[in-house]
Amino acid sequence: MQIPKSSKVVTSYEKIKPFIHHTPVLSSTDLNKKIGTNIWLKCENFQKVGAFKFRGACNAVLPLEFRIAKNGVATHSSGNHGQAIAKAAQIKGIPAYIVMPENAPKVKIQAVKDYGAEIVFCEPTQLSRESTLKEVIQRTSSHFVHPYDDSDVVLGQASAAWEFLHEIPELELIITPVGGGGLLSGSILAAEAFHANENRPLCKVIAAEPEQANDAYRSMLSGTIQSLTNKQITNPTIADGLRTTIGNIPFRIMSRANTEIICVSEESIVHAMRYIWERFNMIIEASCAVPIAALLEKKITPSFKNIGVIITGGNVDLDNLPWNNDS
Amino acid sequence: MQIPKSSKVVTSYEKIKPFIHHTPVLSSTDLNKKIGTNIWLKCENFQKVGAFKFRGACNAVLPLEFRIAKNGVATHSSGNHGQAIAKAAQIKGIPAYIVMPENAPKVKIQAVKDYGAEIVFCEPTQLSRESTLKEVIQRTSSHFVHPYDDSDVVLGQASAAWEFLHEIPELELIITPVGGGGLLSGSILAAEAFHANENRPLCKVIAAEPEQANDAYRSMLSGTIQSLTNKQITNPTIADGLRTTIGNIPFRIMSRANTEIICVSEESIVHAMRYIWERFNMIIEASCAVPIAALLEKKITPSFKNIGVIITGGNVDLDNLPWNNDS
Repeated sequence: MQIPKSSKVVTSYEKIKPFIHHTPVLSSTDLNKKIGTNIWLKCENFQKVGAFKFRGACNAVLPLEFRIAKNGVATHSSGNHGQAIAKAAQIKGIPAYIVMPENAPKVKIQAVKDYGAEIVFCEPTQLSRESTLKEVIQRTSSHFVHPYDDSDVVLGQASAAWEFLHEIPELELIITPVGGGGLLSGSILAAEAFHANENRPLCKVIAAEPEQANDAYRSMLSGTIQSLTNKQITNPTIADGLRTTIGNIPFRIMSRANTEIICVSEESIVHAMRYIWERFNMIIEASCAVPIAALLEKKITPSFKNIGVIITGGNVDLDNLPWNNDS
Repeated sequence: MQIPKSSKVVTSYEKIKPFIHHTPVLSSTDLNKKIGTNIWLKCENFQKVGAFKFRGACNAVLPLEFRIAKNGVATHSSGNHGQAIAKAAQIKGIPAYIVMPENAPKVKIQAVKDYGAEIVFCEPTQLSRESTLKEVIQRTSSHFVHPYDDSDVVLGQASAAWEFLHEIPELELIITPVGGGGLLSGSILAAEAFHANENRPLCKVIAAEPEQANDAYRSMLSGTIQSLTNKQITNPTIADGLRTTIGNIPFRIMSRANTEIICVSEESIVHAMRYIWERFNMIIEASCAVPIAALLEKKITPSFKNIGVIITGGNVDLDNLPWNNDS
């Protein structure tokens, strides 16, 4: 399994550009004041399907050759990646089979259906997820697109940071959340490509993750991919997009770059999520509040003059908001 | 009282441009499909202070001469205009006095305080509002900036449609909500200026308002400014920004252009508000869901190939959402 070359970031971007939204970058005087430096938010919650995942899905699905594509594509996903593959398959005009846990948010299930994909439900365990996917692939001969452990997916996700760096070339630091590592490792490649192409200082890329799902932190510390602990599985983080372990390809890119991981508490994730809702008037998922939480907790040195945060997605169940219970 | 010339739209815009956000324009395949044509949203909910009102406030406050500005500015506002004047005064470095009804949303009161303005509370009636403002002006010798019946405010609001038309020159129709008429009449002037400057067909500008506050509709029908009925006052629309009657200056501009007003039900406003939250992942006030409601209710002919909607603001009390009671 090869690490994708950062030079491929540009060619991937050109391929998917006509199909994705060029998402806006927003800022707020209040947040800048709070952190003491310039903070820029790349708003992938306004991406098609409501999340950056559409970038990776496009890059993995749209260029597929007919002999592979004709039987459709399949994946397992608790939400955004499933929607993204469903929509990319709809654009390409091929079937999509999405394996989803029975307890996935209703709004995400409906969205996948709306894109014309076939949903196959499984139990909410890694084991059931994988065996169900295997059955689906055997039955349909469809092509599996992994949510993050896939070079094309990683290169697709890279396009968010690529656009971001072109819009704010002064960025010295980009923070992403980390779940499987697709966006994080893609952003590292994008920063390297921008550095090489534009003759600019290399923008540092780091990640934030919940303390209650700190597998990426422990993986970087130990040098091998770590799983969630039993306690972290039975008492899961609110940031449901970050409950996965790191993929092999992302981990190799992160290891090469010696990527720093910052961990934040559950409480500060909810606080950061609500802060963004109120101050930016935009809907973000708990998962993408994690880097904001790291900033608000002052866990990142404000010596950087321009810090970018990739706001990853906004697919939220409006009938089940985290502050309805404690406010 | 003179109607501002549409040629002044350009000079006003150049004056306030360094202080305002150039807000993004968003679209969604789903909405386009639902309506059967291209719908573009100009997102003033991402404007500073979370609403287009900041544009008008900047244009009314920033160019003030020192002899007038030195005693500060004053206004009455249930929310967004108050915040906007407070922030514009903060930029100019002068005091601001904001008269607000005691029952204004907490989040709006806090925001005005955060911008360093002095809040003077009044009872939630037009009479108390006006007499309290009078007292404040007598006490402080401050300069009154009306929320909409003011040429500079109208010209400031015009800048939203001005930016919008430059970004999507193919717009054939712009829909705004109408309360006092500042944004609506400003948008009419902007369309006229764009038509004159860019040698493009004149973009039509219409407005939508709640049936339960249909004073603009009745005003256009009768040819004189109408008030809300007693029933509309005691049973107010959820679109709290649209409970005001039309100002004189806006009404003269609307009359000259023979502006069409479309009325929508309360139910469809809440439905449209939630639709935008879910599909665009952005927070909008009930007031700016009104034009979306008109589109979703199919009250606007889809013969226009490109329709623009100005999304006016996103200041919402997250602890008091309209669907928490009925979902």
